[in-house]
Amino acid sequence: MRGGEQSRGGSEDTPRGGPSTSRRGLLRGALIGTGGLVAGAAAGGATGWAVGSEPEPDTIDLGRKYPFYGEPHQGGIATPPQQHTVFASFRLADSAGPRDLQVLLARWSASIAVLQDGRTVGAVQPSSPVQPPRDTGEASGLSPAGLTVTLGLGPAVFGDRFGLARFRPARFTALPKLNGDTLDPALTGGDLSLQACADDPQVAYHAIRNLARIGRDAVVPYWSVLGFGRASAGPGQQTPRNLLGFKDGTRNVTTDEQYSRFVWLGREDQPWAEGGTYQVVRKIRMLLETWDTDRVGDQQQIIGRSKAEGAPLSGTTEFDTPDFAARTASGETAIDPKSHVALAAPEHNGGLMLHRRGYNYTDGLTADGSLDAGLLFVAYVNDPRNFVTLQNRLGANDLLNEYIRHIGSAIFLVPPAPAEGHYVGEALFT
Amino acid sequence: MRGGEQSRGGSEDTPRGGPSTSRRGLLRGALIGTGGLVAGAAAGGATGWAVGSEPEPDTIDLGRKYPFYGEPHQGGIATPPQQHTVFASFRLADSAGPRDLQVLLARWSASIAVLQDGRTVGAVQPSSPVQPPRDTGEASGLSPAGLTVTLGLGPAVFGDRFGLARFRPARFTALPKLNGDTLDPALTGGDLSLQACADDPQVAYHAIRNLARIGRDAVVPYWSVLGFGRASAGPGQQTPRNLLGFKDGTRNVTTDEQYSRFVWLGREDQPWAEGGTYQVVRKIRMLLETWDTDRVGDQQQIIGRSKAEGAPLSGTTEFDTPDFAARTASGETAIDPKSHVALAAPEHNGGLMLHRRGYNYTDGLTADGSLDAGLLFVAYVNDPRNFVTLQNRLGANDLLNEYIRHIGSAIFLVPPAPAEGHYVGEALFT
Repeated sequence: MRGGEQSRGGSEDTPRGGPSTSRRGLLRGALIGTGGLVAGAAAGGATGWAVGSEPEPDTIDLGRKYPFYGEPHQGGIATPPQQHTVFASFRLADSAGPRDLQVLLARWSASIAVLQDGRTVGAVQPSSPVQPPRDTGEASGLSPAGLTVTLGLGPAVFGDRFGLARFRPARFTALPKLNGDTLDPALTGGDLSLQACADDPQVAYHAIRNLARIGRDAVVPYWSVLGFGRASAGPGQQTPRNLLGFKDGTRNVTTDEQYSRFVWLGREDQPWAEGGTYQVVRKIRMLLETWDTDRVGDQQQIIGRSKAEGAPLSGTTEFDTPDFAARTASGETAIDPKSHVALAAPEHNGGLMLHRRGYNYTDGLTADGSLDAGLLFVAYVNDPRNFVTLQNRLGANDLLNEYIRHIGSAIFLVPPAPAEGHYVGEALFT
Repeated sequence: MRGGEQSRGGSEDTPRGGPSTSRRGLLRGALIGTGGLVAGAAAGGATGWAVGSEPEPDTIDLGRKYPFYGEPHQGGIATPPQQHTVFASFRLADSAGPRDLQVLLARWSASIAVLQDGRTVGAVQPSSPVQPPRDTGEASGLSPAGLTVTLGLGPAVFGDRFGLARFRPARFTALPKLNGDTLDPALTGGDLSLQACADDPQVAYHAIRNLARIGRDAVVPYWSVLGFGRASAGPGQQTPRNLLGFKDGTRNVTTDEQYSRFVWLGREDQPWAEGGTYQVVRKIRMLLETWDTDRVGDQQQIIGRSKAEGAPLSGTTEFDTPDFAARTASGETAIDPKSHVALAAPEHNGGLMLHRRGYNYTDGLTADGSLDAGLLFVAYVNDPRNFVTLQNRLGANDLLNEYIRHIGSAIFLVPPAPAEGHYVGEALFT
């Protein structure tokens, strides 16, 4: 390819250099050579966790819009993962009372509906020059970009301060200290959360910035993460990769039955929260230079999957069901019992699953020139104890712990979506 | 739009709610109401600076590829601006000698060619399990995404240490202290630069990460910025907006004649650098909360343009030529002489222009909950004095200075692109 010639079509997906080194080719061919580790491979076959293995499209459609009102659930949970996110945790101002909280939720809801529709939250250029702009303007001219904003309520919302204690689900408390936690207090907790996801990061940033501005009488921004690359699979999408270079989210919650069982809240405890869920957010720094010097055999043992294909080390293709009993020719288990896949597997945790919706992040470089980057892990669960159980297990045993640090953490209750003309959490004030 | 219905087509670009509040509609209609400021508007008309006003397409084509070899110039300068960037400045290791620098440039060049072609820089999963992966893997399966990587050489490269002093263009030195500088030493300078631009940020991040790794015997990463939103217009594209909410780059270098006159180096001083350019990088923090409370009339006076349309305050549409003599009905100049547009105008600077290629960035929040965000300003010029002149003028007088802080700064010489089988800067070693 010379002299200014450019490939513009989506059809050219096998770059020169041969499929063995093509980035897209890596995902197409069957895996050959997992280092000779596997002897008695599992039969594989379809499972409830299999998501589609359609290739990722070569174009991103920025015209997509998602409705905010009248859905059973808020967007940004089961919505096919958009390319980018901006997550923000907020603290309620000391002066904020029940009425301020109510007004905040109503204003945020109305504004989110407008933003998801691809509109500004007011005039970018008011007709009177003495008025500040209502909308900050940087998304003007941009498409809706599939924006969703997910609004969560922290544990403090249900304290005595707001008179809402009777609405608190019994299981909803701040997360306890978990095995392996090395949390930075400046990245931990919060009273409200906004997770904006979009296929254009400027649309997501604009949403968070304007919602923060709209809420400034009631809340103070606390911590925030921009996620630049999607790291969890959605239905029918190729599984993206996290910064460890491994596919992330192969065995994710994808079917309605799984969502119903593991994600959406029912009526049993607090009827008002039916259709909601819990949002668990963890900022996980990865020690990438150390990881990058590790031999690929170790990396695969730590994860429990092959690096190129993402197949469990007991199998050959990504969606093969892991066979934790399979053994190599030399008699060892093909999948290390302390590997990430083994410890997190539903088979070893009473069947439980988390719905993960993570994004890669970077904070640039540390003072010594190391990459300051990792994973913004976001999980949706209908029982916080499931996350606690799983993370305590991983935090105590996971071979991966040498390479990661959990530095941020928070939990929020995400209420169901409101009907048209109503707002998130309205049931708490009636 | 209810009950799961989604708009998927690129055709629906007038969201409900009326064109007056549609984000895309804002750019379509003629501007009405600049606050009554303008009386004798300029005639406008076509100028050399006019870029197209085609609407931004609703899809992003990730299949695009740009060649690295055999071009007159490196990519990422005149290339239509991609959506995302990762910029990194590196310091040469204390132990690095001329041979290390040469090997670095050769290895980086070969790797950039492979990356721009959509390939990995080596095996993601080596056949031997005791080898670390050659490529870190997170871009496997991703499209080329229009990646360009621009390699720059800092002033220290041309010092006595490498025996290259005779190749230094007379005008190439570190930037002097400029009016208004409040630089953080940790974000200032560097011996080599890599600017990766792509329509998928994970592709750009992967490029910088792997090039840093490939160069680790010779260079140490110094400072780095992820730009999440393009903030400079390219030819035929709508002008994007920076985080002040204003269009940025309306009067950018776009024609071959302008590139030739203001951007590309000729043979006069150092023949080896012909077709190269200087890269000036400034990390500019914006004090967004303060800006957002300012009345729109003040914002427009500070910039010299209307907020919605981006028209000079002497005119009505974006590409009207500013008329700095035009006066309002009350007799004041329509465009404030201390506005950003007036101070930076070629008309007031002996005709000089910079080619700007900026991106919006965010570093999250400050400790007090303020937005930590701004503009990664990147300019390409064939004479560093032009930037110095202009920035000293802006830094001393610009009404905008109340709302921005220049916190990072560096300058690099970007050599021309190599022929196939050669490398950037090879002329320095022959």
